[in-house]
Amino acid sequence: MMKKIKGNICAPKGFVATGVHAGIRKNSSKSDLALIYSQVPAVAAGVFTLNQVRGAPVILTEKHIKHGSLQAIVINSGNANACTGKLGLQHAEQMAEAVATQFNIAACNVGVASTGIIGVTLPIENILNGIHSAASQLSLNGEAAAKAIMTTDTYAKHIAIELEIAGKTVKIGGIAKGSGMIHPNMATMLGFITTDVAIGQHELQHALALVNQTTFNMITVDGDSSTNDMVLVLANGLAANPKIDSIDSQDWKIFFEGLVYVCTHLAKRIAQDGEGATKLIEVQVQGAVTAEQAQAAARAVCRSPLVKTAIFGEDANWGRIASALGGSGSLLDPLKLCIQMGDLLLLNMGDPLPFAELSAKEMLKQKSVVMKIDLGVGESQATAWGCDLTYDYIKINASYRS
Amino acid sequence: MMKKIKGNICAPKGFVATGVHAGIRKNSSKSDLALIYSQVPAVAAGVFTLNQVRGAPVILTEKHIKHGSLQAIVINSGNANACTGKLGLQHAEQMAEAVATQFNIAACNVGVASTGIIGVTLPIENILNGIHSAASQLSLNGEAAAKAIMTTDTYAKHIAIELEIAGKTVKIGGIAKGSGMIHPNMATMLGFITTDVAIGQHELQHALALVNQTTFNMITVDGDSSTNDMVLVLANGLAANPKIDSIDSQDWKIFFEGLVYVCTHLAKRIAQDGEGATKLIEVQVQGAVTAEQAQAAARAVCRSPLVKTAIFGEDANWGRIASALGGSGSLLDPLKLCIQMGDLLLLNMGDPLPFAELSAKEMLKQKSVVMKIDLGVGESQATAWGCDLTYDYIKINASYRS
Repeated sequence: MMKKIKGNICAPKGFVATGVHAGIRKNSSKSDLALIYSQVPAVAAGVFTLNQVRGAPVILTEKHIKHGSLQAIVINSGNANACTGKLGLQHAEQMAEAVATQFNIAACNVGVASTGIIGVTLPIENILNGIHSAASQLSLNGEAAAKAIMTTDTYAKHIAIELEIAGKTVKIGGIAKGSGMIHPNMATMLGFITTDVAIGQHELQHALALVNQTTFNMITVDGDSSTNDMVLVLANGLAANPKIDSIDSQDWKIFFEGLVYVCTHLAKRIAQDGEGATKLIEVQVQGAVTAEQAQAAARAVCRSPLVKTAIFGEDANWGRIASALGGSGSLLDPLKLCIQMGDLLLLNMGDPLPFAELSAKEMLKQKSVVMKIDLGVGESQATAWGCDLTYDYIKINASYRS
Repeated sequence: MMKKIKGNICAPKGFVATGVHAGIRKNSSKSDLALIYSQVPAVAAGVFTLNQVRGAPVILTEKHIKHGSLQAIVINSGNANACTGKLGLQHAEQMAEAVATQFNIAACNVGVASTGIIGVTLPIENILNGIHSAASQLSLNGEAAAKAIMTTDTYAKHIAIELEIAGKTVKIGGIAKGSGMIHPNMATMLGFITTDVAIGQHELQHALALVNQTTFNMITVDGDSSTNDMVLVLANGLAANPKIDSIDSQDWKIFFEGLVYVCTHLAKRIAQDGEGATKLIEVQVQGAVTAEQAQAAARAVCRSPLVKTAIFGEDANWGRIASALGGSGSLLDPLKLCIQMGDLLLLNMGDPLPFAELSAKEMLKQKSVVMKIDLGVGESQATAWGCDLTYDYIKINASYRS
């Protein structure tokens, strides 16, 4: 009985949030600091970038989450606090301490996340003042937090759903930001998910790790992995369901499906809002030898600049898809390969099919393009999401710091 | 005593070539068929794309080269003859046979290469007529061949050098084409190298395979590997040096160095002429654990769309370099990482250095940008070449088939 409801991270019981302008960005009309707070300590789970160069907040929050619970999260946009040396780590700690002081909790119960330019020292005074100001403005306005974490995103990404677990209403809410540097293993994306479910830490972490593999790790905007990716889930238990304490239980499965729904929604919204994007690309691969190979193949297509520019140009140039698949490292049989774009089967068992350029062009005018691929060598499948590559991507990224 | 000389593939003794308009392309002013011929059979070596989806000419030429010698090469641009089913393979064979008939040689002594759009049947009649016409126009004009193999290249790429081996003058000439889909493991690049050196097949193949690793495999334009990459070397022995029959001999080393020079030149010219490129990017990585890791790190920087757009925007945004390195899969120590752009050291042992934005901007105005990176974990090094990512890349690739 899962249903989508209004709101986002403040839909689950006991969560408040806000977003303020702390002065990290020059533009005073853009909020740049978000605060999320749970009225009671929450069981916490997290997944973090695999990039070896990790922002200070990633290092700190991963340490904090090892304790198994968080009660607040502070996020700034405009500066990633990465490649900032020891001072950067100190700043991340100061952010956690400032939040802890506001709420009279331990600093290790605060998650810290940052996104923005790399290699520039944080304007820490502005941030500390911002935290003070944000703490006094907490409300049920999760959208303000969703807006404050945006960088080049063109819209805020958020969602909430409602489930029934053992007769109790459980809610899950989430916010996320993209939108450049999005790639497998999470790239510069941040996601914050709140829920009032009662669940064990192990069960929550397992759910997040699994969900992450088929959602946030399956989106790619430009193939670059970020230093600062992070997805956190806070579960405060206020829904008062019997605590989920096994990943084999029916309740866990219901919660897991809810989390899949929330993360898939956010992941697709991120891909769709990739820098400069005009179209969402969904690549469904089947017939792979393993799930990993299906994922690699699907991501390779989403990631190919030649495929991405062809989609932007509304050109059903499927040869580029075949080439991207062949170079993906995933086994395929060229004589069994099938490629379909929208409703049009373009390559059937390795043979190109004549197709009407006009219908292809028409189909590619849609805001969303679905490609179905069969590698012809196995039973495994995967879906990846990406976007087209446009003039605006260049524009945004050639002048990011100006 | 290596020196650069005028000319290209026709500089070595006994080679003739030409380029004609066969009618593969609509634009009749663009030649689209090249023919290279050696007056005597030549020892031949080749390296081919690792893409699992391989063009018909790749499959055929790899088979032919197993015999160890070639006397002619025919190349068409405008159509890759890839993903064209059994008919495509038949067409590639017809091309080889047509050339063989012209010169009264065996079809297995003919190399065939194609580049251009994937998945479209070759206009084989036009090509067969073109071969007939080209055979009657062979001359010392290797540049005509260099021009005929161009696709979106903006200039022909060719070079010739002269060496002395055991008192004899030996020449090596080469032509190549890029310029989209250029990536490690060769992508849509074609290279044809001629030499009058006398050398064994094993010694020639070994030299090419080694050289390829540090030259053509170290360029990347957009991270896409092609279905049709191929580099061939023909050595006809007319320089009359004592035949090089060991890879441990001094003569082999001299020849090898010459081949490195020729291939490095062509590789850099390809990177510099990447689709829409305005700048050549050279990335020198040192301090890696292994040569493979140094290569992977250098290529990851060259390949990063965020680095490429920053260079286009003349923005010394080194954080993107750090992030690309961290995500490359190559081991690095964030606290020992050094990044230098041009003369400017930007990150020293993990600490960002203040630098003058103005001098950085000035330096990035150059047509060529050199980045020096130390991963801080070992002794291995590698160099990769790429180019910036510009509006024109999008323009070229969004409308390639229109």
